Amino acid sequence: MNAELLPRPLGEAADEAIAELRGIFGTRISFAETVCEQHSGLEGHHQGAWPEAVVYAETTQDVAKLAAWCHQRRIPLIAHGAGTSLEGNLAAVRGGIALDLSAMANIVEVNADSLFCTVEAGVTREALNQELRHSGLFFPIDPGANATLGGMSATRASGTNAVRYGTMRNNVLSLKVVLADGTIIDTGTRAPKSSAGYDLTALFVGSEGTLGIITEVTVRLHGLPDMVVAGTCAFESLEGAVRAVIAGLQCGIPFARIELLDSRQIAACNAYSGLDLVELPTLFFEFHGTQQSISEQVELFKAIGEEHGVSSLDVADRAEDRSKLWKARHTAYFATKAMVPNAKMWSTDVCVPIGKLAESILETQADLARLGVLATIVGHVGDGNYHVLFPIDEADPEAFGKARTVNDRMVERAIALGGTCTGEHGIGLGKRTALVLEHGSAAVSLMASIKKVMDPHSVLNPGKIFPD
Amino acid sequence: MNAELLPRPLGEAADEAIAELRGIFGTRISFAETVCEQHSGLEGHHQGAWPEAVVYAETTQDVAKLAAWCHQRRIPLIAHGAGTSLEGNLAAVRGGIALDLSAMANIVEVNADSLFCTVEAGVTREALNQELRHSGLFFPIDPGANATLGGMSATRASGTNAVRYGTMRNNVLSLKVVLADGTIIDTGTRAPKSSAGYDLTALFVGSEGTLGIITEVTVRLHGLPDMVVAGTCAFESLEGAVRAVIAGLQCGIPFARIELLDSRQIAACNAYSGLDLVELPTLFFEFHGTQQSISEQVELFKAIGEEHGVSSLDVADRAEDRSKLWKARHTAYFATKAMVPNAKMWSTDVCVPIGKLAESILETQADLARLGVLATIVGHVGDGNYHVLFPIDEADPEAFGKARTVNDRMVERAIALGGTCTGEHGIGLGKRTALVLEHGSAAVSLMASIKKVMDPHSVLNPGKIFPD
Repeated sequence: MNAELLPRPLGEAADEAIAELRGIFGTRISFAETVCEQHSGLEGHHQGAWPEAVVYAETTQDVAKLAAWCHQRRIPLIAHGAGTSLEGNLAAVRGGIALDLSAMANIVEVNADSLFCTVEAGVTREALNQELRHSGLFFPIDPGANATLGGMSATRASGTNAVRYGTMRNNVLSLKVVLADGTIIDTGTRAPKSSAGYDLTALFVGSEGTLGIITEVTVRLHGLPDMVVAGTCAFESLEGAVRAVIAGLQCGIPFARIELLDSRQIAACNAYSGLDLVELPTLFFEFHGTQQSISEQVELFKAIGEEHGVSSLDVADRAEDRSKLWKARHTAYFATKAMVPNAKMWSTDVCVPIGKLAESILETQADLARLGVLATIVGHVGDGNYHVLFPIDEADPEAFGKARTVNDRMVERAIALGGTCTGEHGIGLGKRTALVLEHGSAAVSLMASIKKVMDPHSVLNPGKIFPD
Repeated sequence: MNAELLPRPLGEAADEAIAELRGIFGTRISFAETVCEQHSGLEGHHQGAWPEAVVYAETTQDVAKLAAWCHQRRIPLIAHGAGTSLEGNLAAVRGGIALDLSAMANIVEVNADSLFCTVEAGVTREALNQELRHSGLFFPIDPGANATLGGMSATRASGTNAVRYGTMRNNVLSLKVVLADGTIIDTGTRAPKSSAGYDLTALFVGSEGTLGIITEVTVRLHGLPDMVVAGTCAFESLEGAVRAVIAGLQCGIPFARIELLDSRQIAACNAYSGLDLVELPTLFFEFHGTQQSISEQVELFKAIGEEHGVSSLDVADRAEDRSKLWKARHTAYFATKAMVPNAKMWSTDVCVPIGKLAESILETQADLARLGVLATIVGHVGDGNYHVLFPIDEADPEAFGKARTVNDRMVERAIALGGTCTGEHGIGLGKRTALVLEHGSAAVSLMASIKKVMDPHSVLNPGKIFPD
């Protein structure tokens, strides 16, 4: 890219331009260091990078005005949800303005008849489900963190129950988006499906704030199941656990959640969450349905487990036991962090065809052993997606480099096995090279040409997704 | 668009250019009138438009060579699957070359462990399911016609069991695509999900051959259910039938198929397929699962039906009865055609939020009555998607105009109700104005700018999707 085409820091903008911005946003623009630091994208193992100012938007019109201002002056603009992304997706690597959407937290419409709702981008998934609690419906996508719907859309998030309910890709019906120049569009309708023109919704889902800024999200809602049963089953081998899930999927078992924790992760969860699970590769499962259909699913899965070396299977049918189990799963990150004093965490993910999942994990475990790296593995096994969590001892000068080696080899192998460098974390800063390895330069050039036509001055979250 | 930028007919190409093309394709290029007529996109109510030549591709490399040739000389290029599209999607309105992909019918890989398969674009869904018949897996998307996987991808097709298994949007994992200039890319991987970069797969799915030519398709496969039970239930009112489906979805009933036929369609099916159903608004349903879970679903749905004015519910548990039922549903088009001697058929579709479906259909029925237009209505009611089938008497000079009025009003109302001008037929020639009404000019301009950057000479299926 020519230097003349690079976006420019806010610091180079003329005084009257800044005055104009202050005129628009008043007290809703801040240049304070602490505020900028909070918006520097520090989550995860990447170094943050401070923006030069933070603007708090309250309406789509606010976002449109700010985008037009930035577009005209070529000032970087980085949209923020809850800030829970893990690949440096929010670092202001070229300065500019962080756009905080957390005040856009209105639930615009819940439509129980048509099973959808429309929310502003700053609504979190927990707030949405709280709002839905008396409707008999719920929004299932659960990436663990209490992310915003805008951020989850921008990252193409998924999580533990994507195996049953799909990812954000499958659940977003439409987005309201502010384009780079401030134009406002709706990408779709409230209809459950459409074949009217190019799929703009899917283009923005997963674009990480680089093609436009999502200000409203319309998502599908799902009926709350009659009954929920969860449980755990430990396997003699990790391969056996994965083969049991494959056999279950082939038989059409509608797992609502099916999570794999390696024996090291089980040890960490036992210590952190007061569980007393056997330290073996273990599946945490959940079934949704009626009592009868769940009984059938459990029985069928038991029979399949026995063919694949199950060591124990425990059903948690009391709500408090189920809750304890999923709390332990959701705090796997903190359980791993607690393994090393003052650890800095690095969480990476890949996703492979499920038939290659055991091979992919076992080879990563072999790398960990060979390099002497401490890490745990948790996987959304029904999707072929798994995470390696590195609790990095910052006192150890080699720790980051070793984790990087494990990560890079895991990514290369995932791609060689027909998989992807990231199932749900996105590219951000961390996987830009992997993007090219995965898609090839022609496909990445196509992505770049779309970026170029939609954001000609490269002001929307610059420096992300594409290698420099 | 400037005239100088329009694609040019093949007839204006130099003799040596044509000789070059003959040199590449030999007997696999035809200029014969009968062959060109077969590729003029005559299906449906639109007038066809003949291409000037037809090329039969056997490999992705063939397609790449042809695309590069057309790109360089600005000659229109129109990719053909089975030719079953309904909105003039294939008419060679600016002449040029029809690319017949039917010889690309190899099944490249069936991967039962990872629940996916890769096929060449010319493989039909029936051929694929025939190949899968001993695997315990199936490919569920069923638009009625025996379309090709390439065509179904390009049209973002769905059909009767999208309510359970999703549309092509949800089932295509990756595509091999030849871009306008002949570059070959893969849009995704074999992983069940990814958040690596822009969703190129979704961009090509539904692009109707205007952004690139799909030569290979990788789709998800699903486990064959233990048991399948189908049946019919007649309702006193169409509104009651729709409300029963909404209540069922809210309760989480996993309908595999849930189709609505209006009383006139029932009459047509009775006559054409030898059924003896009561002439009332009727749901055709299908459940997939175990015997026990299906019994539960049927019982629950019966109870819901009783709250919404069900008049009768009949379960077809014998395979031959089930088959008769779905054959009748799949031949609804021909049953309607048989209502008028030598009828020309026009099949249109819209999709609305399901809570608005009854209103949308009832107002369309009122239009039909008011204008004295004969037509039947069939709907994928679980998706809010329905079709109006007009059996047009070509001897009646007003018949087309009246059908057009009904269609236009139905499309306008669908959009006003938060829906889309087409749920599964695509835009083609027929709904180009509706595209703008639905998305607004800013969103359509964005689509056009993507088209422009990906196909700068507008050679890929020119004249489609966008208004002139």
